Amino acid sequence: MTDQDYMRRAIELAKQGEGWTSPNPLVGAVIVKDGRVIGEGYHARYGECHAERNALKACMEPTEGADLYVTLEPCCHYGKQPPCVEAIVQAGIRRVFVGSDDPNPLVAGKGIRYLRERGITVETHVLKEECDRLNPVFFHFIRKRTPYVVMKYAMTLDGKIAAYTGASKWVTGEEARAYVQRERHRYRGIMVGVGTVLADDPMLNCRMPGGRNPVRIICDTHLRTPVTSQIVRTAKEIPTILAVCEPDRNRYQPYEEAGCQILALPEAEGHIDLNALMEKLGQAQIDSILLEGGGTLNWAACKCGIVREVHAYVAPKLFGGAEAKTPVEGRGVADPSEAVLLKIKEIRHLGEDLLIESEVQDVYGNC
Amino acid sequence: MTDQDYMRRAIELAKQGEGWTSPNPLVGAVIVKDGRVIGEGYHARYGECHAERNALKACMEPTEGADLYVTLEPCCHYGKQPPCVEAIVQAGIRRVFVGSDDPNPLVAGKGIRYLRERGITVETHVLKEECDRLNPVFFHFIRKRTPYVVMKYAMTLDGKIAAYTGASKWVTGEEARAYVQRERHRYRGIMVGVGTVLADDPMLNCRMPGGRNPVRIICDTHLRTPVTSQIVRTAKEIPTILAVCEPDRNRYQPYEEAGCQILALPEAEGHIDLNALMEKLGQAQIDSILLEGGGTLNWAACKCGIVREVHAYVAPKLFGGAEAKTPVEGRGVADPSEAVLLKIKEIRHLGEDLLIESEVQDVYGNC
Repeated sequence: MTDQDYMRRAIELAKQGEGWTSPNPLVGAVIVKDGRVIGEGYHARYGECHAERNALKACMEPTEGADLYVTLEPCCHYGKQPPCVEAIVQAGIRRVFVGSDDPNPLVAGKGIRYLRERGITVETHVLKEECDRLNPVFFHFIRKRTPYVVMKYAMTLDGKIAAYTGASKWVTGEEARAYVQRERHRYRGIMVGVGTVLADDPMLNCRMPGGRNPVRIICDTHLRTPVTSQIVRTAKEIPTILAVCEPDRNRYQPYEEAGCQILALPEAEGHIDLNALMEKLGQAQIDSILLEGGGTLNWAACKCGIVREVHAYVAPKLFGGAEAKTPVEGRGVADPSEAVLLKIKEIRHLGEDLLIESEVQDVYGNC
Repeated sequence: MTDQDYMRRAIELAKQGEGWTSPNPLVGAVIVKDGRVIGEGYHARYGECHAERNALKACMEPTEGADLYVTLEPCCHYGKQPPCVEAIVQAGIRRVFVGSDDPNPLVAGKGIRYLRERGITVETHVLKEECDRLNPVFFHFIRKRTPYVVMKYAMTLDGKIAAYTGASKWVTGEEARAYVQRERHRYRGIMVGVGTVLADDPMLNCRMPGGRNPVRIICDTHLRTPVTSQIVRTAKEIPTILAVCEPDRNRYQPYEEAGCQILALPEAEGHIDLNALMEKLGQAQIDSILLEGGGTLNWAACKCGIVREVHAYVAPKLFGGAEAKTPVEGRGVADPSEAVLLKIKEIRHLGEDLLIESEVQDVYGNC
């Protein structure tokens, strides 16, 4: 086993915390002595032990002289947990191999310096890219304090999200739809426009067994969400935010009584100011959002520059239809040179469908 | 080297004839003696020698007792060339390994029987699937006598073939556009609607160095192609067919003088009867067509059931735009259950773009 192999194992472990550590990062750790793994751990849930401590606790034999592989620079400050670097020194660890640098200004570089000052050999940037890929949300949120927005849609190979009649059950197959549920578990919030609520009366919950429901965020400029909708009726069980520009606070009452939180926001170009909404959601510790909007909201989000990733589920079928809806509508760009540029990160096969995951490279204009 | 390895080499050789053998198939052959390749050949061009004879001719040592690997069942009838089976027997070949069965009713199984009756050991279906994949056009054309139609389009990841203004230069990058030129070389015809001619005044030629120009086919119900268009002005150099429903033959004259061929066809649902057009093109030995239509023609072609493959070039960018054009338009299906079903065959990375190649599985309705 090479250093890379141990780090790869640490990455696998880190992923087991998926969906539960927010707004903390995913972290995995492996402890190796005499060429054998003697302890493994990961950060399992926000507020609980960090990966390094879990790995140390898991060791059934003395850790003196052992090596530690950890996907993220160990912390050296008091947060919810005492600093990991202290535990590492106390355990007599000889060498520490680190993947990602910590983007948190409270920590960056300090953990490594602390360890080196106490005679521990530290090697940094082991499989850095793979480790970085564990935590795009954390890296974004710690710097920007606004949610990392992933725009998700399911379309046919001719770019339709529904037939011209509006019928959209189903575009993709079972495996792709199950994967979407896993995505809902991974992100802290889910956002749609009121149009989707009016058309489909959805629940927007996470139906993955053992999954966590995202906070539901409805962009509803004129507060048109029906009080009788499934979302409002279940707002006491699942956190629900209605983002509105409606100034008449008397209209909020039935929604608030049903358990919804109403966020009143300024208007921008006839709809909610999405940048202002992102600020508020960030303050509420919502670090990530799965945007399942229709074409209008999706375009507004692109134009505002809040979208960081695009997850396009592509079904191998054609609907045709000049009037059929497409995933991103609104006005759109006037010229190809003004397009929102993406970089493809990964292509997954989900049954017969594809999931094309990409990152936003460049953003056209501003709100 | 195993039998599969030799056949894999024969497949590689076969591909070198790409674009030149139509309406003959691509065929490759390898001759092996004492574990060494002593001759290789392929069918290079329509009317010239078949792969087996080329491989035999290439041998610099006696072929007695050698093995022959050939991607397609050897022919045993007199066409443009004397039957290959005779040459194989005369060369003293001991064993023959065959990939694809010949779908041609004049040949099917006869070549193999001929060889076996003369004491040659024949093993069939060696890498059959890979060999079959060399010749979808030939297999289709020999049975149906209509062209094998490949619908090609370039779109953004949000399903747009142009910005809302109509601007479409460029959707995809250089590598993808170069690949399209190779496709134009591979297929015998290229087909667009008159809308494309009016909007872009294209040449529809093959700009691949050393490539062959496809026959240009314009679907032009009311004969609106301008006599001054690039296509009409170059019709003496590059074969050009205007498919029309226009009954007034006097209107044909300027086009015919410019070198165009006019095909008068019955009307079906307000446009050219595409099935009738395919019959006529098949009679003219056009075995394959790259359909580079706009959304209206593409939908008509899907609906008629003439499309066999879909090649979707997908650019990692978003145009947005409720009014932006999409690759397949027309009326479209009313419900997802009526979709044209595809099966993804291959995903190619062309620079930053993707090419998703799929086969049509099932076709909705008929013309």
